[in-house]
Amino acid sequence: MINPTRFLSDLHHLRSFGPAGVGKGVVRPAYSDADVAARDWLAGRMRDAGLTVQMDGMGNLFGLADAPSLLMGSHSDSQPEGGWLDGALGVIAALEIARASREAGGPPVSVVSFQDEEGRFGVTTGSAVWSGHLGQNEADVLTDHAGVALGDARKALGDRVTGPVDPSQFTGFIEMHIEQGPTLDKSGEQIGVVTDIVGIRDMKITFDGQQNHAGTTPMHLRRDAFQAVSAFNTALNDRFRNVVTPQTVWTIGHVSLHPNASSIVPGRAVFSMQWRDGDSDRLLRMEGIIRDLAAQVAQDRGLGLSFGPLLGLEPVAMDGRLRRALEQGAEAVAPGNWRTMPSGALHDATNVSRLMPVAMLFVPSIDGISHAFEEDTAEDDLIAGVQVLERAVQALT
Amino acid sequence: MINPTRFLSDLHHLRSFGPAGVGKGVVRPAYSDADVAARDWLAGRMRDAGLTVQMDGMGNLFGLADAPSLLMGSHSDSQPEGGWLDGALGVIAALEIARASREAGGPPVSVVSFQDEEGRFGVTTGSAVWSGHLGQNEADVLTDHAGVALGDARKALGDRVTGPVDPSQFTGFIEMHIEQGPTLDKSGEQIGVVTDIVGIRDMKITFDGQQNHAGTTPMHLRRDAFQAVSAFNTALNDRFRNVVTPQTVWTIGHVSLHPNASSIVPGRAVFSMQWRDGDSDRLLRMEGIIRDLAAQVAQDRGLGLSFGPLLGLEPVAMDGRLRRALEQGAEAVAPGNWRTMPSGALHDATNVSRLMPVAMLFVPSIDGISHAFEEDTAEDDLIAGVQVLERAVQALT
Repeated sequence: MINPTRFLSDLHHLRSFGPAGVGKGVVRPAYSDADVAARDWLAGRMRDAGLTVQMDGMGNLFGLADAPSLLMGSHSDSQPEGGWLDGALGVIAALEIARASREAGGPPVSVVSFQDEEGRFGVTTGSAVWSGHLGQNEADVLTDHAGVALGDARKALGDRVTGPVDPSQFTGFIEMHIEQGPTLDKSGEQIGVVTDIVGIRDMKITFDGQQNHAGTTPMHLRRDAFQAVSAFNTALNDRFRNVVTPQTVWTIGHVSLHPNASSIVPGRAVFSMQWRDGDSDRLLRMEGIIRDLAAQVAQDRGLGLSFGPLLGLEPVAMDGRLRRALEQGAEAVAPGNWRTMPSGALHDATNVSRLMPVAMLFVPSIDGISHAFEEDTAEDDLIAGVQVLERAVQALT
Repeated sequence: MINPTRFLSDLHHLRSFGPAGVGKGVVRPAYSDADVAARDWLAGRMRDAGLTVQMDGMGNLFGLADAPSLLMGSHSDSQPEGGWLDGALGVIAALEIARASREAGGPPVSVVSFQDEEGRFGVTTGSAVWSGHLGQNEADVLTDHAGVALGDARKALGDRVTGPVDPSQFTGFIEMHIEQGPTLDKSGEQIGVVTDIVGIRDMKITFDGQQNHAGTTPMHLRRDAFQAVSAFNTALNDRFRNVVTPQTVWTIGHVSLHPNASSIVPGRAVFSMQWRDGDSDRLLRMEGIIRDLAAQVAQDRGLGLSFGPLLGLEPVAMDGRLRRALEQGAEAVAPGNWRTMPSGALHDATNVSRLMPVAMLFVPSIDGISHAFEEDTAEDDLIAGVQVLERAVQALT
C-alpha cells in the first residue's frame, strides 16, 4: 500500500532544492547546483527504498529494481522559473510506487529522473540521448542562452556518473505528470489517462505586399500584408471546422510586421503557424488547407507568399495494455470522474517510446497554470494519481 | 508666359544639392550642408527674379514680391532618403510663376521654401513655427534621432537669418506637390485639385488575454489576444462599409504580440489603429465604431481592453476661391483629364491655413512612389502643373 504522508513529505522536500518566487515556486534548471543536490538527495531516497542507483553520462538518474521491471518516473529539473510539480511529481510518485511495491512483495518497479527535460540545451535532451534519438556528441555541443555548452555543464555531475543504463531491462514506462492545461480543472475530473502525445507541425509563413504611405494609398490599391494575415486567419478558423476534433489545436503565436509603424501600410508580414493533433493524417490534411488557403489569399490580394521549412514531431500513441491498466485504475479510484485525453505537450515518454511501450497519467493543474511559480494541484488529486498508478502496477503483473 | 525649359533646368539644378542613391535621389535633410547650400542657391535665383530675400529664424526662405501678394511654394528639405520632387517641385514651380508673372507685368507672387517639412525634428516644424502653431522655444528643444537639438542645428543658418517675416502681406497660399500616392498615376489623369487635407486619428489599442501553452490549452478555453485583433479587424472592415467614402483610409500598421512565440498562445496584443478622412464628423463616427467593436470583441472573448490616448489632426478644407481658380486652370490645361481629390498626407499648407486661405495642386507620382530615391513624375506632367498654376494666378488678379 502506498503511504500518502511519505509521498507528500518527499514531494515537498524536493521543492526545498531551488525554492524561489511566490508559493511553491522552484528554480532548478538542469546541472545547476540545486539540480545536482536534488539528484543526490533522490539517489539517497532510492537507496533507502532498496533500489540500485545508477546515473548515465547525461545525468539521467535511475533507481533500479531487479530486472526485468517496469520503469516509472519523469524529470526533476525545472524551467528557469518553474513550479514544484512539473516533472518532480512523476519522479516522487514513481519512488513511492517502487518502495510500496517492494514493501508489499509486489512486482519490481524501477525509477528514473531524466535530465534537462525542460530543454536548457534543447528539447527533452536527457531522454533524447538515453533513447538514442540524439547522440552524446551532438548533445554536448548544444548551448544554453548564456552560451554554456552541455558538454561543459554536465561536468558538474563529477563522479556521480556510473555509466550507460541498459534499456532492455525494462518492460515498459509509465509517466505521471500534471496536465499543464485547464481541461481537468475545468471539468472537475481527477484523472486523465493519456491516449497519445500529439504530433506538432510548425512553420513560418511570409506574405510580401507593398509598403505604402498610410495616408495617400487608397484602400482598393493597397497590398497590405497585415490584412492578408488577418484574412488568412479568419478563413482558416472557418475551413478547419470540418476537419478538426475538440482536441486539435492551432496557433498563430508570432507575428512580425515590416516596418511595423502606424503610418505605413505593412509591406511584409512573417508569422508562425503551429498545429497539433494526435493523428498524422489530420496533421497532413491541415497542412494542405493551410498551404492552399495562404496561396489563395496571396493570389486574391496580389501578394507574394513563401513558406519556411516545416518542422514536425510525429504523434505517439500510448501502449494499449499499459493504458488499459491505467484506465481500470482510474475507474477504481475515481469512478466516473476521469477521462481519456491527448497530451498536447511533449514529455520524456515521447523519447522513451522508441525503446519500449509507454503510457501516461495526468492529474489536474489548478487554473491550467504551469511553467510558473503559481503551478499547483490539490493534494487529494496528487494522492489519487499515485493510487491509480499503484492499481495499474498491480494489474500489470 | 512660363518658360518650361528654365523651370525644368532649375528643378534639375536643385537636385544637385545632396544627390544620392539611384536615379534622381537626394539626401538633403533640414540644416544639413546640402540643405543650407540649396537655400543659398535658391536665394540667388529669387534675387535674379527680382524678389526680396528674407529668412526667418527657423530657416524658412522667402522671396518677397510687392505686398500684398499671393504666396506660393513648398519646402526644399528632403527625407533622410528622398526623391527630387517632394517639396522641391512646389518651390521651383512657385519661382517660375513669380518671375514669369513679373516679366509679364502680372500680379505680384512671393515664393517660400519652408524648413524641415519632412520632420527631422518633428512634423512640418518650419511652417508650424511660422504659423504660430509651435513656439520657437518649444521647437528649439526638439531633437533628431541622433539627439541633436533643433536649437543647435539651426545655428548652421548663421547670418542668413534676417528676422521674422510678416504673414499679413500675403493674400493666400498655393502649394503644388507631387501626389505621393497612386491615384492619378492609376487613372492616367494629369492634375489633382485638392479638396481638403484629411484629418488623422491615431491610437493604440491593447487586448489583454491569457498567455498559455499552445499545446495544452484547448481552443474553446483560449483567450488569444491575436485572435481578438484578427476578429476585430475583420469585423471593422465590414462595419466601416456603410460609413466610409472611397477616399477614407484606415490602417493597422503596427502589431506587437506578447510573448510573440510560436508555442505560446499570445496573452497580449498592442496594435495601432489609424484612420483618415476629410470630414471631422466621419472621423468621429469611425472612432465610435472602433471603440464599440473593440469592446464587443473583448467582451465576447473574455479579454481586457484598453485604449491609448487619441492623437488627432483636424481636416483642413481648401479655400473655395483659390480652389476654383485651380480647377478652371486644370480644365484649360488638361480638359477632362483632372480630378478633385483629398490629400491623404500632411503638408505645409495645413499650418499656413491658420494664417490665410490655402489651396493645393497635385501632379502624378509614377507608381505612387515617394519618400524614396525612385520618386519621379513625367516632365510633361510637371509642366502641366505649372501651367495650371499660371492660369490660376492670372484668374485670381
